[in-house]
Amino acid sequence: MLPFLNRMARPRPASRLSRRRVLAGSVGVAGAAVVEQAVADSLADVPPRGPGAQLSPVGYRSEHVHLARVPESTPGRRPVDPSEAINSKTPIGQLVGSITPSDLHYERSHAGVPDIDPAQHRLLVHGMVREDLVFTMDDLLRMPSTSRVAFLECTGNGWENWKEAPPELTVQNTHGLISTSEWTGVPLSFLLDLVGADRNTTWMLAEGGDGAAVARSVPLTDEIIAEGLLAYGQNGEPLRPSNGFPLRLFLPGFEGNLNIKWLRRLKFGNQPFLTRWETARYTQLQADGSARQFQLRQEVNSVITSPSGMMQIHPGFNPITGLAWSGHGRITRVEVSTDGALSWRDAEISGPALSKAQTRFQAHWAWDGGPTKIVSRSTDEKSNVQPNRATFIAATGSNALFHYNAQQTWAIDGDGRVRNVLA
Amino acid sequence: MLPFLNRMARPRPASRLSRRRVLAGSVGVAGAAVVEQAVADSLADVPPRGPGAQLSPVGYRSEHVHLARVPESTPGRRPVDPSEAINSKTPIGQLVGSITPSDLHYERSHAGVPDIDPAQHRLLVHGMVREDLVFTMDDLLRMPSTSRVAFLECTGNGWENWKEAPPELTVQNTHGLISTSEWTGVPLSFLLDLVGADRNTTWMLAEGGDGAAVARSVPLTDEIIAEGLLAYGQNGEPLRPSNGFPLRLFLPGFEGNLNIKWLRRLKFGNQPFLTRWETARYTQLQADGSARQFQLRQEVNSVITSPSGMMQIHPGFNPITGLAWSGHGRITRVEVSTDGALSWRDAEISGPALSKAQTRFQAHWAWDGGPTKIVSRSTDEKSNVQPNRATFIAATGSNALFHYNAQQTWAIDGDGRVRNVLA
Repeated sequence: MLPFLNRMARPRPASRLSRRRVLAGSVGVAGAAVVEQAVADSLADVPPRGPGAQLSPVGYRSEHVHLARVPESTPGRRPVDPSEAINSKTPIGQLVGSITPSDLHYERSHAGVPDIDPAQHRLLVHGMVREDLVFTMDDLLRMPSTSRVAFLECTGNGWENWKEAPPELTVQNTHGLISTSEWTGVPLSFLLDLVGADRNTTWMLAEGGDGAAVARSVPLTDEIIAEGLLAYGQNGEPLRPSNGFPLRLFLPGFEGNLNIKWLRRLKFGNQPFLTRWETARYTQLQADGSARQFQLRQEVNSVITSPSGMMQIHPGFNPITGLAWSGHGRITRVEVSTDGALSWRDAEISGPALSKAQTRFQAHWAWDGGPTKIVSRSTDEKSNVQPNRATFIAATGSNALFHYNAQQTWAIDGDGRVRNVLA
Repeated sequence: MLPFLNRMARPRPASRLSRRRVLAGSVGVAGAAVVEQAVADSLADVPPRGPGAQLSPVGYRSEHVHLARVPESTPGRRPVDPSEAINSKTPIGQLVGSITPSDLHYERSHAGVPDIDPAQHRLLVHGMVREDLVFTMDDLLRMPSTSRVAFLECTGNGWENWKEAPPELTVQNTHGLISTSEWTGVPLSFLLDLVGADRNTTWMLAEGGDGAAVARSVPLTDEIIAEGLLAYGQNGEPLRPSNGFPLRLFLPGFEGNLNIKWLRRLKFGNQPFLTRWETARYTQLQADGSARQFQLRQEVNSVITSPSGMMQIHPGFNPITGLAWSGHGRITRVEVSTDGALSWRDAEISGPALSKAQTRFQAHWAWDGGPTKIVSRSTDEKSNVQPNRATFIAATGSNALFHYNAQQTWAIDGDGRVRNVLA
């Protein structure tokens, strides 16, 4: 395993030490003294230990850790003042594992973040049901619940790269509209039984308590009935206000805007309700100028989060890591290329690959210092393979804004600078 | 499912509504008008919608959500000023699902929380290895990593109930020294290969960078080698300072103090190092006055988190929910009793029961209003069954302080007040 250390990129105490140690091994006792001195040198700048801060009711991040969402308005415009922002993106280039801290979960809102008193919040359920009902949050918290780790992704994730690839974009800019949480709530199937929705009830209107009253029609497929949640919990605690406190719809695998936040009304029927959100806002413009409605599922996707846009690497060992996900189910394979998609090899999937959750992958790579491009592509349990950009654009055209899932290519120049490129 | 609604405890708009609706169903059109009026009444106090707050770099909790750890010093003393606290406990009675938010993960410290600059932090590895090495955090972040959801539990969790059961204790007081996170870091097995630890190397000393320099001897069993991590990530982000930033040892299933925080040194050998932490502090006093060393594994355990101590319930439907865990592996069964352990029934396990992670369980219960006691007991994949208190004390005596895993009983009086009791 020593080659791993020696392949590390920049000279630094440990690397210098390991080389000196290898030397020492060949020169015996005198060499050992060299090593002892090297160890002492390496530790010389370690601060002394002393009493620390007192314990606290709520923990804080280290002052040495800088994590923040970035506000954005529309593709191609940045930086943006927070007062103009319509979304804020998760810093996925700086995170590890697969869970997103709740305070860094991406935001998307059409009328800001409402401040809702849960004691006054109500959920009205009406339409094609046995009886109209109004639930308080206390009612919902007393019902059976379940928890599930799953991603939530804005249908606009990736929209930066539809037409061009601004080279200064980070992976937070290109892919920061996705996050993964453990969601907890009442199974939608329980609610349907409770209110007496029968097989003729095939669509559900969900409406939010925000100023824009975002409302979407949800098809009551077997999958959505089986997996949908009226969610009130996120990563163990109540939802954060920007993620729908006190109640949101959560439909694993389906586009973010369908997962209505600040949920206050469910109306049942036997056809879509055709709200303005699905006639104007969230339709997909096709190459021929027509618009596609109800393209709801998030497709198989992946991105290398490190090295990624605006990072700087050095020749030698560079670990490649990233995230893969699919609205169809589990990720079964992730491949990476370090030669611009000429050749591919399997990345290692670390941790359980949960259905419809972000899945962490990694691969080892020794960069030779020459210009190249790195890319990832994922495959899900339904055998969907993430397309390259040419295939994706050929199939979809470039008028659209949503459901971009083409492979992301990062170019590395001879100085080790990483840049966003189209392919 | 309507009986579920009618079994809800307190009259409230939705419950009243459902009863009126049942009535309406029997009286036809006039009844429907009654229902419409009832729906309108239920929604009358819902505040109007309007523009919300702007998006933010880091999310916040709702002002209506109050979650905090409680500081404690020694069993039986509370409340305690934070300056005297040696631990702060997770509010597990108010959480949902199984993940603990990082800022509410329990704390335990012997010299406060150090403020460590990761750029200056070093990990020295020496002793019975092929070569002594010093690693920077950059070195460690470039090594292969893995992630795993697992619990961390202070060996003192439950110590409140060893000798008596103060009736005013909440579940945060009795069982708040456990939390569950997704941990990310370098596999211990990788490090062992890297530094050339061979089969004769059977023990590892781990030392922290805190003022107390807490140090523990870790037996290098196959299990610990296979599952141990040098952890730098927790729930997607860097460790919080109170949980060891920038580096800690993480050994799934083993007592908290073995999982050395602010890790700065690993020394390898072929016998335990017998630090003062394992000769004085973390030994277990037996019934005969002798002390047991190296009782390291956390046993099978569970607790009902709701209803629990100091809560107030009402006759009718009350969901029972709680958490179960075992340092031996997966939880395979949780049973609950609502008649003081006279009879038991299986609780439902919600979500995947991950090995060595807290597992959420729930059961439905209609309380008849009479005094009773509720209890849970868990079973793990190695067929370990959580003992009742009498069996546990008979086996262990009551001199000890650590590894308390007896069943937790909550007494409910005729007024619906929930109290901590011994059995």
